[in-house]
Amino acid sequence: MSAPVIAVVGGGQLARMMAPAAGELGVHLRVLVEAPGTSAAQVVTDAPVGAASDETAIRDLIAPADGRAPADVLTFEHEHVPNDLLTDLIEHGTPVRPAPHALVQAQDKIVMRRRLTELGVPCPRWVPLPVDPEQGYATLAGFLAEVGGQAVVKTSRGGYDGKGVRVVSSADEAADWLAAAAAGGPQLLVEEKVPFTRELAVLVARRPSGEVRTWPVVESIQRDGVCSEVIAPAPDLTADEAEEARQVAVAIAEGLDVTGVLAVEMFEVISGAVGADGAVGADGTVGSADGRPARRVLVNELAMRPHNSGHWTIDGSVTSQFEQHLRAVLDLPLGDTAPTAPWTVMANVLGSSLPALTDALPDVLGAFPDARVNLYGKDVRPGRKLAHVNVSGQDLGEVRRRALGAAALLRGETLPENRTTDETKA
Amino acid sequence: MSAPVIAVVGGGQLARMMAPAAGELGVHLRVLVEAPGTSAAQVVTDAPVGAASDETAIRDLIAPADGRAPADVLTFEHEHVPNDLLTDLIEHGTPVRPAPHALVQAQDKIVMRRRLTELGVPCPRWVPLPVDPEQGYATLAGFLAEVGGQAVVKTSRGGYDGKGVRVVSSADEAADWLAAAAAGGPQLLVEEKVPFTRELAVLVARRPSGEVRTWPVVESIQRDGVCSEVIAPAPDLTADEAEEARQVAVAIAEGLDVTGVLAVEMFEVISGAVGADGAVGADGTVGSADGRPARRVLVNELAMRPHNSGHWTIDGSVTSQFEQHLRAVLDLPLGDTAPTAPWTVMANVLGSSLPALTDALPDVLGAFPDARVNLYGKDVRPGRKLAHVNVSGQDLGEVRRRALGAAALLRGETLPENRTTDETKA
Repeated sequence: MSAPVIAVVGGGQLARMMAPAAGELGVHLRVLVEAPGTSAAQVVTDAPVGAASDETAIRDLIAPADGRAPADVLTFEHEHVPNDLLTDLIEHGTPVRPAPHALVQAQDKIVMRRRLTELGVPCPRWVPLPVDPEQGYATLAGFLAEVGGQAVVKTSRGGYDGKGVRVVSSADEAADWLAAAAAGGPQLLVEEKVPFTRELAVLVARRPSGEVRTWPVVESIQRDGVCSEVIAPAPDLTADEAEEARQVAVAIAEGLDVTGVLAVEMFEVISGAVGADGAVGADGTVGSADGRPARRVLVNELAMRPHNSGHWTIDGSVTSQFEQHLRAVLDLPLGDTAPTAPWTVMANVLGSSLPALTDALPDVLGAFPDARVNLYGKDVRPGRKLAHVNVSGQDLGEVRRRALGAAALLRGETLPENRTTDETKA
Repeated sequence: MSAPVIAVVGGGQLARMMAPAAGELGVHLRVLVEAPGTSAAQVVTDAPVGAASDETAIRDLIAPADGRAPADVLTFEHEHVPNDLLTDLIEHGTPVRPAPHALVQAQDKIVMRRRLTELGVPCPRWVPLPVDPEQGYATLAGFLAEVGGQAVVKTSRGGYDGKGVRVVSSADEAADWLAAAAAGGPQLLVEEKVPFTRELAVLVARRPSGEVRTWPVVESIQRDGVCSEVIAPAPDLTADEAEEARQVAVAIAEGLDVTGVLAVEMFEVISGAVGADGAVGADGTVGSADGRPARRVLVNELAMRPHNSGHWTIDGSVTSQFEQHLRAVLDLPLGDTAPTAPWTVMANVLGSSLPALTDALPDVLGAFPDARVNLYGKDVRPGRKLAHVNVSGQDLGEVRRRALGAAALLRGETLPENRTTDETKA
């Protein structure tokens, strides 16, 4: 056969980071980009321009009219593709991975919560809010009374990176969203505000023939609802706790028939503190460590694609999430997910005061020769995901200090002279 | 400033493997490729077609007539570029790295040997052969009589991968080459046939402002004059021997004013057995190990670019030779060259019985989940460098077995069932 062709919808940094893996595997990547010169378009030779919602563009991505080889599989770097079209493509012989019956769980939080509850996966308590604004108001008020204090209202569709999420103390605070939902906007759901000890994430890959691999459980540190730092593996987690978190992720990948990479974002909570009755293992409790209360996990969000919580794998694991995603969607055997160092820390660069991030290269490469800098080729805008840095090593405090220091320089900040001492250690 | 632009001459696998590093650094790569669809052209968006000897093509690569950004620096994936043109480019303000005064040492073996001898770098005994065929014949016959037995006749220019090299026992065996040289072909030189214990290589990177970094010394195993396997680091080398080999490479990089990556291929010999008088350290002897005679190195060949002996760095070192080359030619701080595992073995795939190497992906990825497969996107031809595989780990025997096994599958060979036992270990 000639080189496999993978069609990818979406031209951002996730598609960009698939390109090196595609090159190494000898796979041809064809990426539908939103505009010329996007992050992925800079590094992918076959990058037609079109919208993810444009049926003609998607069809031409799979079977180009100009005679380029048809795609062997269609996949995504985001979840915003019309499912009717995907279903039609599958009926006409193009594998779509993940398939729409899985993808909908990452597109619609109500569908996802309902299915996870059926599967017995531990989740925060939640209810869908009726579209009728008065019923929605009453349901939200009742839920708040039941959980006591605050709750989290979410739009079922379209949210990401903290968007489409609002913490409320009263139903009045969601009045505008209830009105928007009633006016035809995305439906709403409400979840208990979980008193989590921290956020964890498990990345899992699954191929159509059933093989599943997971990477070590990581700790994910958010700032303003956006991932800012990932520590791999998650410190201070017992083997039992890690294994239970891993099993939750595998249960979701298998239960939802996910193919490709799936990121499962989780809340770590003190066992018994909160949560619905869904349980993995005996009662959802995920082990117990010496000298501290046992922890358990509740599933927060799902992403069916390579995810920010897995960028550390590019430099810290034998097989990166990007290569693994390509292998999985082609139904090729999955790669070794072992870490290549005791610790890897990923630090995001969200916005910068510099005109261009490459301006910082002399400083950042000079100060941190072991930093693995990954720039996304995007114009600088406030809060925008522009780059990440991975640092690996033996000493977690030092690894964190270096990764965060390198990211700070890329944001245009100046390192204090004494930053080279250890006061910034974890 | 906007993204730096690096212009690269040559569209083979070396330029191809620069692409991921360029993407990560946010650097724009513009590669002059020999034809559409070459190894590099498949993965580089800005890949004009043209010959390395075509002045117009080179000038347009640096300053495109269509308004694309001019290149900040010109570099190479091979040494076959006219030096007069390069000198002119420098005079008109374009940095060329390595510069022609360094590059000539990798283009012309007589120039190289003369300069290394001046620098006191240990080399095999050698003489240039006069162009006059009778004088050339007499010089070669005299050299053979002096060294006793065999010698190696080389063309001063144009040789690579065993081409332009012939082992002779008598001057008659070089008669055709002497005639070709007299008729205007490349001049010849003759070197003693070194009774080496093995071949080593040291990869060094140097930037214009002077910073130099080396990777660990590796053992390079050749088959029919072509690198087939690299073991990093070279086993059974004392710290003193490794340090001396490293110092030889650094002395060359500095003495020849190389910028970018330089590969120094070396013969390891029993100390005192052979070689010219050039010495690094006291007498060119490179340490001595318990229980075996001391070893020393003699410099064989130089390559002023990323090199096959450094492909292991993609997966086995914090910074790959490809990223380091880009950093060096942009005069950016160099990256950490520490290995990421105790052992990494690189196995080349030279030719294959398969129609396409991607046909082997299900088998090779299934049998060796930890193998880092790197396909070059080339059509299969006998003996052609089509791919390499890196495997890293703790146990050298197991690492070798896996790397060689994966390469064998990509060549279309079948692994014996019992190959999974240890009879193929080093």
